[in-house]
Amino acid sequence: MSQDEPAAPRHGDGGLVRVRLDLGYDGTGFSGWAAQPGRRTVEGELSQALTALLRSPAPLRLTVAGRTDAGVHARGQVAHADVAQRSFAELPGRSGRSSEEAALGRLRGILPADIAVHRVSVAKPEFDARFSAIRRRYLYRICDDPASLDPLRRWDTVVLRGPLDLEAMDSASSSLLGLNDFAAFCRRRAGATTVRTLLDYSWRRDGLGVLEASISADAFCHSMVRSLVGAVVAVGEGRREVGWPAERQAARERGVQVMPPHGLSLEEVSYPADERLGIRAEQTRARRAGPDQV
Amino acid sequence: MSQDEPAAPRHGDGGLVRVRLDLGYDGTGFSGWAAQPGRRTVEGELSQALTALLRSPAPLRLTVAGRTDAGVHARGQVAHADVAQRSFAELPGRSGRSSEEAALGRLRGILPADIAVHRVSVAKPEFDARFSAIRRRYLYRICDDPASLDPLRRWDTVVLRGPLDLEAMDSASSSLLGLNDFAAFCRRRAGATTVRTLLDYSWRRDGLGVLEASISADAFCHSMVRSLVGAVVAVGEGRREVGWPAERQAARERGVQVMPPHGLSLEEVSYPADERLGIRAEQTRARRAGPDQV
Repeated sequence: MSQDEPAAPRHGDGGLVRVRLDLGYDGTGFSGWAAQPGRRTVEGELSQALTALLRSPAPLRLTVAGRTDAGVHARGQVAHADVAQRSFAELPGRSGRSSEEAALGRLRGILPADIAVHRVSVAKPEFDARFSAIRRRYLYRICDDPASLDPLRRWDTVVLRGPLDLEAMDSASSSLLGLNDFAAFCRRRAGATTVRTLLDYSWRRDGLGVLEASISADAFCHSMVRSLVGAVVAVGEGRREVGWPAERQAARERGVQVMPPHGLSLEEVSYPADERLGIRAEQTRARRAGPDQV
Repeated sequence: MSQDEPAAPRHGDGGLVRVRLDLGYDGTGFSGWAAQPGRRTVEGELSQALTALLRSPAPLRLTVAGRTDAGVHARGQVAHADVAQRSFAELPGRSGRSSEEAALGRLRGILPADIAVHRVSVAKPEFDARFSAIRRRYLYRICDDPASLDPLRRWDTVVLRGPLDLEAMDSASSSLLGLNDFAAFCRRRAGATTVRTLLDYSWRRDGLGVLEASISADAFCHSMVRSLVGAVVAVGEGRREVGWPAERQAARERGVQVMPPHGLSLEEVSYPADERLGIRAEQTRARRAGPDQV
């Protein structure tokens, strides 16, 4: 079963139930989301925990909304797994809790401290963590005054010699919005489209002066978020004109710095209402190929 | 030279200059502020860095506003050191920078990533990081819904099974304000007064639902902040009535849980205007004995 063509789970007694996991993680100690032999990955840890919890004879597979790269964090990641209905139903034992509550509590006991499962819920069979998603929102944090860095935030904040020009950056960012070919910001992949809809790309300073970019799109291709940030940082540093990122975009040519992973965090994934789930997943599968990786 | 009776530095050519350091640190990897043989401490690291930077023949000593315990963090700590005027003046070399800027840049290169010096400045001889301070503000963070914990903030957030009653906690906190004997919340120390002025003690939830206490006083005695939080958490959990912390305070008897250190951070230290510095330090020395440790 490839991730691009997921088989529909058999739901019901004796069959499978599709379980949705909402989670966050500190990406510092992981070689990214995707399981890799010999590497510590979020998918690997989560799959191992779920497999143990449900005493599955075969390792449980996960489908995820955003396949984050090594070092990238998440506060609002979403994944799904198809698990044996019977094992899931047995989880509460005599506790009086629901299967979802029991799974949540026990996963918390099994998982390491750098992964936090926020919610376990039973999803409709049509729900697909990746293909049903209509919007992904990322956050990128930059401290442009090394003297003001909070050491507690060094794991999710990139430090640059500044100061960066917030107004110029915000202006350059908004020029990239809309339905566009983002080939200039994507790692090429044969047969995969690089057309995406950038829904939001704005900058602000938080209470301590750290620059925070909020970046939303229907989906992102590989290295897209970090390249979008890199292009706009060049403007903020005064190395490029405000119009430069949009020119790169129009030219569809790479040549933009990819920012370090640890400033990036997947904050939120949005899905349509249940009745629209199946339609959305079919549309997405038809239109796109290749994994969403950031 | 004991910390309680600091000798006035000899200022001027060939003498000493009093240097103020504003800094933050992630307390996770430190056995607290105070230098201890064989332990990694903030004071130890900072003293070593300063001593190397200024090529001091003897290890440079530091005086600090708040002697934080093992695991306690700081975003707004203040310390001072008396350093050789000549060495300090030579720091910029031919860079054209001020001694302060040169010291800041070079300390950043020497210090580990869990200490960030925000500012280096020359202080008046009357300035004393500890005795001149008129107000210290601390932050304590508690997540009372384990499902919502951001793993990136696990180093400075205590997780409790909740939910905690914010309104009851805020009410209990405000009953402790003012000039009082805080013996119920302090580790006893012979000859040291436990009378302090609690200027602010309030609770709110941040954007992600984490409870944050803001706690300010003229000064704190040892374990006082963490005990004040412990007393009020007992109210938030419903184990104690809203009036209980004030009763403990009036009874001057201990019996309050001391909360874990990693939820605590020293956020800000306030000083009077320069012309009032000397007067303030004399007043404080006359009134108090024993180190401010939290």
